[in-house]
Amino acid sequence: MFCIRIAAFSLILSAFMSPALAAEDPAFDFETRNAAGEVVIPAVIPVVYQFVSPGADDASLVLRITTLVANAWFDAIAPYNATAQGVYSDLGRRPQEEHTDANRNVAIMYASYRILNSLLPAQSPVWQNMMLDVGLDPDDNQTSLDNPIGIGNAAGNALVAAREMDGMNQLGNEGGCSFNCQPYANSTGYKPVNTAYELNDPSRWQPAVITSSNGIFRVQQFVTPQYGHTDPYVISDLEQHQVVPPQDSNPDLAAYKQQADEVLEASANLTDAQKMASEFFNDKFESLGFSILFMAQSRLLSLEEFVWLDLATNIAAFDTGIAVWREKARHDAVRPFSAISYLYGDQPVTAWGGPGQGTVSDIPGNQWKGYLNAADHPEYPSATASFCAAHAETMRLAFGTDEMGWTVDIPQGASRVEPGVTPMQDMQLSWDTWTEFETDCGISRFWAGVHFMPAIEVATDLGRSIGERAYEFVINHINGTVD
Amino acid sequence: MFCIRIAAFSLILSAFMSPALAAEDPAFDFETRNAAGEVVIPAVIPVVYQFVSPGADDASLVLRITTLVANAWFDAIAPYNATAQGVYSDLGRRPQEEHTDANRNVAIMYASYRILNSLLPAQSPVWQNMMLDVGLDPDDNQTSLDNPIGIGNAAGNALVAAREMDGMNQLGNEGGCSFNCQPYANSTGYKPVNTAYELNDPSRWQPAVITSSNGIFRVQQFVTPQYGHTDPYVISDLEQHQVVPPQDSNPDLAAYKQQADEVLEASANLTDAQKMASEFFNDKFESLGFSILFMAQSRLLSLEEFVWLDLATNIAAFDTGIAVWREKARHDAVRPFSAISYLYGDQPVTAWGGPGQGTVSDIPGNQWKGYLNAADHPEYPSATASFCAAHAETMRLAFGTDEMGWTVDIPQGASRVEPGVTPMQDMQLSWDTWTEFETDCGISRFWAGVHFMPAIEVATDLGRSIGERAYEFVINHINGTVD
Repeated sequence: MFCIRIAAFSLILSAFMSPALAAEDPAFDFETRNAAGEVVIPAVIPVVYQFVSPGADDASLVLRITTLVANAWFDAIAPYNATAQGVYSDLGRRPQEEHTDANRNVAIMYASYRILNSLLPAQSPVWQNMMLDVGLDPDDNQTSLDNPIGIGNAAGNALVAAREMDGMNQLGNEGGCSFNCQPYANSTGYKPVNTAYELNDPSRWQPAVITSSNGIFRVQQFVTPQYGHTDPYVISDLEQHQVVPPQDSNPDLAAYKQQADEVLEASANLTDAQKMASEFFNDKFESLGFSILFMAQSRLLSLEEFVWLDLATNIAAFDTGIAVWREKARHDAVRPFSAISYLYGDQPVTAWGGPGQGTVSDIPGNQWKGYLNAADHPEYPSATASFCAAHAETMRLAFGTDEMGWTVDIPQGASRVEPGVTPMQDMQLSWDTWTEFETDCGISRFWAGVHFMPAIEVATDLGRSIGERAYEFVINHINGTVD
Repeated sequence: MFCIRIAAFSLILSAFMSPALAAEDPAFDFETRNAAGEVVIPAVIPVVYQFVSPGADDASLVLRITTLVANAWFDAIAPYNATAQGVYSDLGRRPQEEHTDANRNVAIMYASYRILNSLLPAQSPVWQNMMLDVGLDPDDNQTSLDNPIGIGNAAGNALVAAREMDGMNQLGNEGGCSFNCQPYANSTGYKPVNTAYELNDPSRWQPAVITSSNGIFRVQQFVTPQYGHTDPYVISDLEQHQVVPPQDSNPDLAAYKQQADEVLEASANLTDAQKMASEFFNDKFESLGFSILFMAQSRLLSLEEFVWLDLATNIAAFDTGIAVWREKARHDAVRPFSAISYLYGDQPVTAWGGPGQGTVSDIPGNQWKGYLNAADHPEYPSATASFCAAHAETMRLAFGTDEMGWTVDIPQGASRVEPGVTPMQDMQLSWDTWTEFETDCGISRFWAGVHFMPAIEVATDLGRSIGERAYEFVINHINGTVD
């Protein structure tokens, strides 16, 4: 494991709860501080919330950004370690006396700048300011391997070259498109068999109608179905990461109604703690991202250790997402809202009645919605449950223990779904162990009404096995024992 | 006509080009200034751009807001005129010595506050600040008819009561929905016969796939199909405002390909002036809204005259929209992008090749897009062309002349579609007459590739006939000669 060493990790976790944070110190101290956690993350988070995913819940898009940024950091500091080796670059090794956080921080900043301009080019002014705010010249694009600026640029450039056309269609040109191409456009030919208006096959995924409550209604489209065909970091054979088919989603079986009724029963009995856990795990920054920051702070990780942990956990989720997306497309399974509408139509059911309505007994089945909106992809398996399983397994291996000990304060009324109303009183979410975190995360998708239980049950093994590989992958790159 | 009187209309048109404008003067002079144009409009415009329609091109939603706000103003100042009568309230008549702009401005502010809190309740803090910024108490909700605060509140409340459930489903409760209801949800049962993926019937509307280039793709849904069933102001019989069916949109006829080829030819020959005119007329604030402000300023309209003109032109477009939406749903006609994809498939066509690409000769028919995205509704007839025809006709009647004389400066690179690139040089859009404005507006939809010519040709008579009625309606309310 790579852990538990006293270090100058000055990151204050609570600061990351406020997306507007930016490094304000004009004389950012590169020797003692953590540019990854204190400069880059606070610049990236608000951009993602504003331009990519308002709830940080479009996991395929959010994880791509966090993973590639972590990868940039890792590759940029590898030359400042006795054994480490970059994932996408081999930039030599600097002499021992240069193995300082001052050099690592500068290399991290330039590598971040290169990958962010590739991932989010429309926000280039933000990335320029991110550099200028800590006194760095964004236009210094030299790639000499004898200084941290050049090393950071070289690491970032190599990563961009390796990942810009990795199957995810980041540039829009991977699906046979040559005109009017759009980033991340569906390049697989996937088409839903159901429309938002007709459930032609009640076992299959139906896109939902979505609104921002402003009068504009749009119909979901499976987001980045090609994620299942994107180059993984650690998966060698996707066939090994398949899950059993969602047998209960067959409308000819009694189990179809049974699993739907379980969702309704959970909806009818939703507690404030369940609602807030659902929201917490839905936001990939709050749950996955901030738990890394919590561990780094509470375990006093060094800058290097923070970067290593961040890459290992991100690869765990990123590769798990690849396996999950492939399975989602393969099984194309129905979401609870469609099944409940199909089963009950205009007939009343007892369930949560919508924001601020509590439990009602007269909601027509076709007006029922889960506490959270279903995301833009088929139901099976649960992506969130799989990510948490992968994340938790990597954490357990990295720290050699299941202990977590994280408590998150939730103020009265902080809910995004029921603002001002839920929770009724200040409360806390708290996990003693990673196993508790992982279990709560999975079941929260059932509480939220976006998954049936089987989609959560298969997630644990799927995520954990990939988390294990991600840990080994990063350890091997730290130790320089890559084939 | 109600025009040409010297008045203290201090509005500076160019200020409205900057959406961030707000009245900064802590001592707003209610006696000499225009609260409608200088306080309310600058508060509403940025909210609409941010929360309703980023391009101000979702016409059914934008026009509802501008029309009801204008209606609030009209009804609020009616008691301060010798003959005028409110559309939705009869609040008596104040003595001659109270017929001051000071009273009218206060009444306008309170009426605006009431209708805006009904139309855009989530933005209530903005409306509160709008009041506080000019020294008014937003919590003063008295309705005594002996003072402008009470008159404004009473006028606003009556308007809210009359229009909150007028068929447009503003509250979400008009389509049989009692749980999880959403404002302006489709309450008509309209379903497209085509999907975004399959053109089952090449004569009918196909929803397009839309993205903000952030990785999320969504499919269009016909926006507010119930607009065609909303209570009109001046239309007594919608049957009288039908248009001939779109005969050329029948794929069995040679005309189907011919009208599609005309669109491609226009696309291949797009000039900078055509591109910028297309963008200008697509934005309902810039084109319809600011042309009212231009007329008010250049013709030195009084506060009263401005409000009268604003209501007449807004009702003209609002009711035209009702007729247009009904016809759009009835004919459910195919947009050019679908027809061109159907006709040419993978075969190359010569056309505009996308932002910054200019004209290309090798774009596959199924990758072609118009210069503007097609809006979220069927093709026939053109809503924008109809609005402009209604607007122009009302203007001609109000001023007794076709003269316009408006010039709009377009800086180099100001395009939203091709920012920094188009236009290549500073340029102007200019119209000597309302007929030129109306004609340019209509044809711009053809240049933009969102309409075939027949949808534009039928718009003129449709819009003009309703514009005429709108003018008469407002004149009758000014003169107190309402049945």
